[in-house]
This record gives sequence, C-alpha cells and structure tokens, in this order.
Amino acid sequence: MAINDRHISSKWRRKIHEVIYEADTPAGKFFDIILLVVIIISLILVMVESVPAYGTKYADEFIIAEWIITIFFTIEYILRVISINKPTKYIFSFYGMIDLLSTIPLYLTFFFGGLNALLAVRSLRLLRVFRILKVTRYIGEADKLSKAIRSSGPKIAVFLFAVLVVSIIMGTLMYLVEGPESGFVSIPVSIYWCIVTLTTVGFGDIAPVTPLGQFLATLIMIMGYGIIAVPTGIVSAEYSQSNKENNAPQNDPEYRHVNTQNCQNCHSQKHQDGAAFCHQCGYSLDE
Amino acid sequence: MAINDRHISSKWRRKIHEVIYEADTPAGKFFDIILLVVIIISLILVMVESVPAYGTKYADEFIIAEWIITIFFTIEYILRVISINKPTKYIFSFYGMIDLLSTIPLYLTFFFGGLNALLAVRSLRLLRVFRILKVTRYIGEADKLSKAIRSSGPKIAVFLFAVLVVSIIMGTLMYLVEGPESGFVSIPVSIYWCIVTLTTVGFGDIAPVTPLGQFLATLIMIMGYGIIAVPTGIVSAEYSQSNKENNAPQNDPEYRHVNTQNCQNCHSQKHQDGAAFCHQCGYSLDE
Amino acid sequence: MAINDRHISSKWRRKIHEVIYEADTPAGKFFDIILLVVIIISLILVMVESVPAYGTKYADEFIIAEWIITIFFTIEYILRVISINKPTKYIFSFYGMIDLLSTIPLYLTFFFGGLNALLAVRSLRLLRVFRILKVTRYIGEADKLSKAIRSSGPKIAVFLFAVLVVSIIMGTLMYLVEGPESGFVSIPVSIYWCIVTLTTVGFGDIAPVTPLGQFLATLIMIMGYGIIAVPTGIVSAEYSQSNKENNAPQNDPEYRHVNTQNCQNCHSQKHQDGAAFCHQCGYSLDE
Amino acid sequence: MAINDRHISSKWRRKIHEVIYEADTPAGKFFDIILLVVIIISLILVMVESVPAYGTKYADEFIIAEWIITIFFTIEYILRVISINKPTKYIFSFYGMIDLLSTIPLYLTFFFGGLNALLAVRSLRLLRVFRILKVTRYIGEADKLSKAIRSSGPKIAVFLFAVLVVSIIMGTLMYLVEGPESGFVSIPVSIYWCIVTLTTVGFGDIAPVTPLGQFLATLIMIMGYGIIAVPTGIVSAEYSQSNKENNAPQNDPEYRHVNTQNCQNCHSQKHQDGAAFCHQCGYSLDE
Repeated sequence: MAINDRHISSKWRRKIHEVIYEADTPAGKFFDIILLVVIIISLILVMVESVPAYGTKYADEFIIAEWIITIFFTIEYILRVISINKPTKYIFSFYGMIDLLSTIPLYLTFFFGGLNALLAVRSLRLLRVFRILKVTRYIGEADKLSKAIRSSGPKIAVFLFAVLVVSIIMGTLMYLVEGPESGFVSIPVSIYWCIVTLTTVGFGDIAPVTPLGQFLATLIMIMGYGIIAVPTGIVSAEYSQSNKENNAPQNDPEYRHVNTQNCQNCHSQKHQDGAAFCHQCGYSLDE
Repeated sequence: MAINDRHISSKWRRKIHEVIYEADTPAGKFFDIILLVVIIISLILVMVESVPAYGTKYADEFIIAEWIITIFFTIEYILRVISINKPTKYIFSFYGMIDLLSTIPLYLTFFFGGLNALLAVRSLRLLRVFRILKVTRYIGEADKLSKAIRSSGPKIAVFLFAVLVVSIIMGTLMYLVEGPESGFVSIPVSIYWCIVTLTTVGFGDIAPVTPLGQFLATLIMIMGYGIIAVPTGIVSAEYSQSNKENNAPQNDPEYRHVNTQNCQNCHSQKHQDGAAFCHQCGYSLDE
Repeated sequence: MAINDRHISSKWRRKIHEVIYEADTPAGKFFDIILLVVIIISLILVMVESVPAYGTKYADEFIIAEWIITIFFTIEYILRVISINKPTKYIFSFYGMIDLLSTIPLYLTFFFGGLNALLAVRSLRLLRVFRILKVTRYIGEADKLSKAIRSSGPKIAVFLFAVLVVSIIMGTLMYLVEGPESGFVSIPVSIYWCIVTLTTVGFGDIAPVTPLGQFLATLIMIMGYGIIAVPTGIVSAEYSQSNKENNAPQNDPEYRHVNTQNCQNCHSQKHQDGAAFCHQCGYSLDE
Repeated sequence: MAINDRHISSKWRRKIHEVIYEADTPAGKFFDIILLVVIIISLILVMVESVPAYGTKYADEFIIAEWIITIFFTIEYILRVISINKPTKYIFSFYGMIDLLSTIPLYLTFFFGGLNALLAVRSLRLLRVFRILKVTRYIGEADKLSKAIRSSGPKIAVFLFAVLVVSIIMGTLMYLVEGPESGFVSIPVSIYWCIVTLTTVGFGDIAPVTPLGQFLATLIMIMGYGIIAVPTGIVSAEYSQSNKENNAPQNDPEYRHVNTQNCQNCHSQKHQDGAAFCHQCGYSLDE
C-alpha cells in the first residue's frame, strides 16, 4: 500500500510503540502496570513530602526518589516521541502535554530554584492515570456519565447563574445587616459565605449573630434546600432517559468491541478487534 | 393605519428605540454588550469598594468611577424614556424600576449623606443583566426550569410548612434541654439552629453539649436527611414529566421562533420573526 | 329519624358547633381566622419571651398577654366540649388533647411554680394550626406526600438501620483512633459525631486531628455522600409512581369534593358537599 | 435415607440446633429475643463504659457485667459448635467469626492486659443483630436496596474516582494558595479538607482565609453541588427500574415463602415452608 510504504519503520520502533501505547500484549500490559505503580508512588511522595514532619527529616531521600522517577519519565517520554510517526501531533496532544509537564518539574528547579509551585505541577501526573485506565470496563460508564452531564449543561448553566445572582444580592444584604464585626468584612467575603451556605457546606468560620442576619440566613438555607433539588432532578431525569436509549449496547448488532490499539501513524484510538488498518489514516495496524 | 398614524414618531426616536431596546441589529447588539460590560464593572466596583484595604486607599478613584457610571446610566435612562411612546408604562414596569434604582444611588447621597445602604441598592444593577441575557438560548431552559418549580409549588409549600413546624417544636425542646450556656440563648435562636441543622448546613457556631441535646440533634439530623429526599423526589418526578410533554418544541409545527424586538408603543415582547405589527397593540414594528 | 331524635339538641348548641368546628359559613370562617391569629400571636409571645433582653424587661406585659390568651382558649375549649354530642370522644381525640394542653400551662404554674418546661407545652399550640388549615387546597398534596413517605417506610427503616450500624462501628473506631484529646470523649459522643458527618451536617465542634482519624473521616463522608443518594432515589421512584397512579383525581367520576363539615354527634369529618346525614353515624348534618 | 443415616444425631443435639439456629418454634423465638437483649445490653455497656464519668466510678460493676455476658456468649458459642454436624464450616463462616470475636475480648485481656482496642472488638457484636433480624419482613427490602446499589456499582466507582481526582488536584492547589497559616499544613490535609467541602460536610476546622483561597473554595463547593446530583440520579434511575422489574413478588406464582430453618448438616438457609430435606445437601430437616 502506498500510504503504508511511505511510513516504513524499523521492527524495533514498532515493538516499542506496541509496548508503550497499547495494552493488548503481555509486554504492553506489564508496562502499563509498571507506569501506574510509578505514578502512584510519585503522587504519594509529593503528598508525604508536604507533611512538615517528614519533608525536612527525609529531604535527601525525597530528592533521590524524585530523581529516579524523573529519569524514568524522561526515558519514557523520549521513547514515546521516537516510536510514533508524527511526533508533533503527540507532543501537542492533551496527554502529550501532561506527559511533558510530569517530567520537567525537577529540571526546572535548576533555572528557578526549588519553587513550591513546581510541587503542584507534579500533581498533574494524576491525569496520566486516565490514559492507563482506558483499558478498564469503567470507560463505558464514564462515557455515559459525562454524556448525561454534558446534555444537561445548559440547564445547569441557568441554574448556576441563578445561584450566583442569589449569592450576590443576599451577600450584599448580609454585609449591610451583619457588618465586619461578625466576620462579614466585605461584599466578596459575604458572597463567599452565601455560597458556603447555599451549597449546605456551612464551614461556620463566618456566622450571623444579629437576629435579622440569622433570619436572612434561614431564608438562604431554605432556598439552598429547595435549590439542591433542581440539579438532582435534572440529572436524574436526563440520566434515566439516556439509560432507556442506551440500554445494552453489547446486544446491539451495530455495536462492536474496540480494543486499546493506537495507530502508530496518526495516534487515533478505538480500533475494532481484528482491524488491520487504522480507520483514520489507513496505516497498517499489525506487522 | 389609524393606530399607527396617531403615534407617528421621528425617525431618530425610532432608531434610538431599536438600539436600546432590541438586539437584532448590529448597533443593538453592540449597545447591549457595552451595557453588560458597564453593569459588570459597576458591580465589581461595588464589591471591591467594600474591601477595607481598597475602599479607603482608592476612595477618590471609586467616587470618580461611580460618577462616570451614574452619568452613563442617567443618559441611558433618559433615552429609554423619550424613545418609547408610553413612558409611564415603562417607568412603572419591573425593569423600569430597576433601571431607576440603578441610576439614583449617587444622587441620593446629596440628600442623605454617604449611607451604606445605598451601596446595597447598586447591587440591584445585577438584575438588569437578565434583560440583556434574554437573547441567549438559555432562556428556553430557564422557562422550563421555572415552570417545573412553579408546578411543584403547592407540594414544596406543604414541605416548607412541615420543616417550619419541626423547627419550632424541636427548637423549643433544644432551648429547654441545652439552655443559654451552650449558645441556645432564646427560642428564636434555637429555631435558627434547628433550620441550620435540618438543611444540613451545620455552621457549628452553636452546637449541643449535653448528652440529651446531642441525642435530640441526632434525631433532627436524621429527619433532615430523610426530608432532603422529599423536594428532590418532587422536582425530579415533576421535571421528568415536563421533559416528556415538552420534548423538542423546535420540531413542533405549532412553534415559531421569537426575536428580541420590542414594541415601541406598548413595550410588549416576543414577536415572531418577520412580524410587521405588534401582536398586542397593532403598532407597526418596522419602518 | 330515630338516631336523630335521640340526640335532639338546642338550636344554640348547633350554631356554636357550626361556628367552632366548621368553616363553610361566614361565621365559621371568621372564627377560624380569629383562632389562627390568636395562636400565632401566642407562639410569637412564647418566642419573644425567651429572648433575655425582652423576657425580663416586659415580664408583666407577657403575663397579662398570656392570661388573655389562656382565658380565650379556656372559653373556646368549654364551647367545644358542650357543643358536641359525645364530649368524651372529642376530649380524648388527638386534637382534643392538643386543645387541652394549649389551655392549661398557665393554670399549672399555680401548682408547680413558673417551670420552664411549661413554656415548651405552649409550643404545641402550633399543632392546632393543622386543624384550621384543613380548609386549604394544600391538604391534597400533603396527603399525597405523606402517602409517598409511608409507602417507602420499610425501605427507609432498612436504610436508617444501616446508618445506625455504620455510625456505631465507625464511632467506636474514631473513639479509639482520635481519643478524648480531639473531642471524641466517649463512644456515644463519637457516634453523635459520626451521624453529624454521615448526614453532611458537619458542625465542626468535634473534628479529627490525627492523620488516621482524618482518613477514616474521609471514608465516612464519602459513604454519607453515597448514602444520601439512597433515600432520595427511593422517594423519587415512589413519588413518581404515585404521581402516575394518582393523576388528576378531580376528573375522576369516582371522586367527590368533601367539605369541612364536622358531625356534631360522632365528630367524623370529610362529608361530601350536599350530604344531609353523617356517613359514619347517620346523624343529621343540616338543620 | 443414606445421607440421613450417616449423620444420625441424638434428639438432644437436634433440639439445641432448633432452638439456637432457628426461629420458627416458640423456644427458638424466645432464645432469639434473649440473645438480642443480651447483645443490646452488651453494646450499651461498651458505650456507657467509655463515658469518663461512669467508666471510672462503676469500673467494678462493668467488669462483673462483662464477665456475665462473656460467659453467656461462651456457652452459646459452644452449643452452636456442638449442635451442628460440620462445625468447621460454621466456625469459619462470616457469622461464626463474628460469634467468636464477640466472645473472646475479655479472655484476651489476660494475655495482653486491658487494651483499649479490645473495646472496639466488642462493638462488632452489633453485627450479630443482623442474623437475628433475618426473621423480619425488612430483609426483602434490604435485598432490593443492596441489589440496586450493587448494580450501580461501576457508575459509582467512576464517580468516586472523579471525586478523588478533583480532591487531589484542588487539594494541592489549596495547599499552595493558602499554606500552613490557614490550617492547610500539608497536601494530605488539604485533600482531606477538599473532600470535607465536596461532600458538603464542611466542618470548618480548616477554612480558607485568602481571597484566592476563598474563590477556589467557591468553585469546589459549586462542583460538589453539581456532583451530589450524579449518584442520586444514578441510584434513582437504577432503583426506579428495579422497582418495575421486581414488582410484587408476593403475587408471583414463582415465588415461595422461605422460613428461618437452618440445615443442621450444611448450615444452608432459606428453606421453603414445609420443606422436609435440605435443598443443598438433602439432609432431613424435621425429625
């Protein structure tokens, strides 16, 4: 095939691609599990490092561990780039960016010093877990869930706008009624308190003390109580409808199982079992 | 047309009406965006001004900004009044009152001094946003939502009454059991605490300390837990029904798209696309 | 009629019965409104009296007002007893007990002194409001609601038992993990805290401080988050079913409107419009 | 019958089995009630003992009461073991383990001293209540409920994973924004706070104080507000479906009432009324 010949690549590159990007071969599955373990260890290290008691005591151990993880991620990133035919497409894809951001924090400390903010970037490694978990049966449920949430998007937008309007007007009122003595030091803080109350979180760091303030707070709470019913009702109705439409795709003749293969040429996914060519670019999927 | 001739008006007035009240022409859309921006800036200024750190430091700048906004709103209000045929109808309409209240706070400070309460009035400018947003596609959803809420009105009223009765009886009991030492200083405060607890907000500014009080609190919480299910169930059932009845009005031959035109004579809205005369008073809509 | 002749009563008693027990005549409606106003004033007085600032300052005025209300309720109670044919049935009915409890607190203070607990009894006057409100259209909704709640009773009982079991086991665990230093002073207090957390109230008067305690608290919260879905789902499903079955009773030929008449002989209610005899005892309803 | 002859047992053992394991004879019912009362008394003692005011004052009485209960449970456990044909099956069953754990804490204190953790083990006695309550009509509802929860398992797993991801990312952000001064002393504590906020519990022991932190907190709360709708919608839809499928098993000809008999040979349950042989091992159920 013409398109196939143009992208002729060594057996070695093909093998790496299969191991790193896919999870249908034993080697691919093993690599995914190793990667998952390294990511989770890395996340636990970030968390434990932030605990003052451990962070200072084992400072050296944390740096060594971070170096090992960074080198592992660096090698993985390089292999990902060289084993794919269109590297720029991968580099600028969502997961490509996450992979890069997961790798570089330690290198950046050479230029900017041990900034605390670099710690945060390492938390984004968590997002890498999503790609690995694509192999699980949960992905179908996640699709259904996110579809239900997206289709009730405009309704929830209207609803959030209503919450915002109530918060701004009631927040201003509470600021006037309670004043700085009770913790309502400014209108933005009052609005923050209003949202804390409407969502029934109720931290209690700020609480009304005047009778009128407590009466207004009561109104806000009962409103919040009624309001909580609205998004629940929406999602419930939406979900129950999508449940009917979407029932049992497994038994549907128009439904085919997709595997975790990943086109070496164009990086597209969700190929059918037994597919020989990429459904996006026609590149050969198997040797 | 007779009705049309009686209200003959200059081309200039007609033009202003189109720009200010409607959003179908480029000039009308541009005016709406400018107005939206000014309202949002004005609201942000009100909020930031209330923050002690900024309010005193930039007091002069806030007064200048408020003057500019007030003059802008004054001009807009005058144009709105003179470009419509029945000004009194506009002035005493809901949005007419909001427009006036948005304009006058600064003028009132000449008579009553720099009252804090005038700050609150400026927050009502937020309500003006609703008129501008009528052009969005969200308005259909908002209609559906408010319809679902209204149709479950009597049920929610029964429910709120039940919440009130539980709060009053349990509030009195908690006042007797806990007493002023634990913060239950009076029956109204105890009722306030009961509502805080029933709605699962739980500030914690007041909390029972005696074993009997904590036991009663447990009962109230579990009640609140069961009660939260009721309005959710109601709205959910109601919404899911209205969802079935109301499905896809776009495909309904009895449904026509309405635009943002606004009759210059009688101020009525929701005219069909291509309508030449107001469906309320027969006044000509286009030149 | 034999049954009718046996209970022959003076026109005067019949008139009082109609005014006090029913709400279909102007005099009956007027009496209900007066009674409602007196009950609400009485409740407000009980609440305001408990506020320290007012309770001591206007102590005399509160006693005078309470005397006026008590005398009004005493007269009403006597009229209720003498105008009905079977007084004992009324006296030992639910509302008969409430009426008596609403009347006697002040008299009891002669025997037991000004006990605080007598204050609480006066709050029960609130329950009298229910009888008066029977005339509103809300009663149909309340019936439907209470039916939905009752029919999901066994499910909610199972659910509450599960909540209790989780609270007792997790409460004991939290007591062991956190100990008295963090406020978990005993197992009952820990169980109280668990219920506060499971129901998402979260006062914050007690909060875990050890890492293990915070981890367990996280588990409890997520459990509570999942658990909140269960009763809502139950009531929602139950309500939506009863909605279908029970739709539009007004259009049902088997449905007849009932009025607020109240049999003078046997105290039974819900007579059809135009009914001439009590459907329970055959006693004549109209003159 | 061959299988029956092999396991021939004395009348006395059979009688004990019937009394201890079943609840269809008066003696069996009486034993269950006694056991329920002892378990509840034991649980109340564990709780009251943990209250400092009582624990030290009545220390001797608590030890005596615990000895009586322990001896009662010991005798019951021995009888359970000797009256069944396959004791090892019972001993290693779930309820067999619970029975053993309920009995031994006091004996263990001889070896390990009066450890506080042994207190916790005694709380597990609560789980024994479940076996006794198998006779109630609630078990059908519990089955239905647990089925609904299990069938929405994968959806709830996806959902909980989403909650976890949001908590980890927002927790890291809040740690960077707020810092140790506001109580966000480490990333794990920040994550704990995030879950407290997302689930709308809101203890308030930790609360943001910087404007940016409060703004992020607002986002988390509104997210939590939207998120709470998802599991409720799922369970609601799931439950309403299982409600339709599972309607009225009592009227179903394929449904047979099961009693509380318990095979003496293989410990299996849910035998039909009038069954003469165990449906699992064919062992004779009645004399």
